[in-house]
Amino acid sequence: MSDDEKVLAANAAFYDAFARRDVAAMERVWAATHAVACIHPGWGPLHGREAVMESWRRILGNANAPRIACAAPRAYVMGTLAFVLCFETVSGSHLIATNIFVREGEAWRMVHHQAGPTADAPPPPEPPEPKTTLH
Amino acid sequence: MSDDEKVLAANAAFYDAFARRDVAAMERVWAATHAVACIHPGWGPLHGREAVMESWRRILGNANAPRIACAAPRAYVMGTLAFVLCFETVSGSHLIATNIFVREGEAWRMVHHQAGPTADAPPPPEPPEPKTTLH
Repeated sequence: MSDDEKVLAANAAFYDAFARRDVAAMERVWAATHAVACIHPGWGPLHGREAVMESWRRILGNANAPRIACAAPRAYVMGTLAFVLCFETVSGSHLIATNIFVREGEAWRMVHHQAGPTADAPPPPEPPEPKTTLH
Repeated sequence: MSDDEKVLAANAAFYDAFARRDVAAMERVWAATHAVACIHPGWGPLHGREAVMESWRRILGNANAPRIACAAPRAYVMGTLAFVLCFETVSGSHLIATNIFVREGEAWRMVHHQAGPTADAPPPPEPPEPKTTLH
């Protein structure tokens, strides 16, 4: 697995924890030995693991929290740090996000997330390759 | 100068180029040998130096572009990459931004910028230290 693929897998694990409202998984997504920060849509900055994880416990504990899915992620890997840009699909509309990851041992872990509104939308998924036929 | 101070100086150079509508300075702020990306408020993602610099030429060339100032920046330095969270003051209201920098030689250069709305506001500047007096 390339570093790009590993970073995109870490990004997918973040959205999976979000979608499943799985606080324990979200704790594992975020860096343990590096400083972390977070900017939820419309919020101010949260600095430090305690403030960031407290925000996720509140968000994931809210049964009315919207369901979010990631679309069109793209990874930029630069040594032991990386960032991913992606769309977030929420109730048919879209947000856009920057997610920063750091390598801790063998794992890529999140150190920062910012999401905000966008007037843009992810490109439609590419159609499958046409099957070759004899005619 | 510590790495924190150098990264904050690079962040200040970005807002200075923005405020002065100085395209040449903005070209120097952004990384030359690393991939770059940018998410302007409300926009979709821009990938690559050509798309990012073209957006800045359009924004800085617009005489009606709002004047933006940086407030309450905070740096996270992780080896040869760093990110800064800060508020952007625009016509009395605020945006919130993530700016990512990479070290290229001796300089810290921007590889990504995302700004979006926030309901929060920067804390007021700290008052100067009271002068010690004899009474």
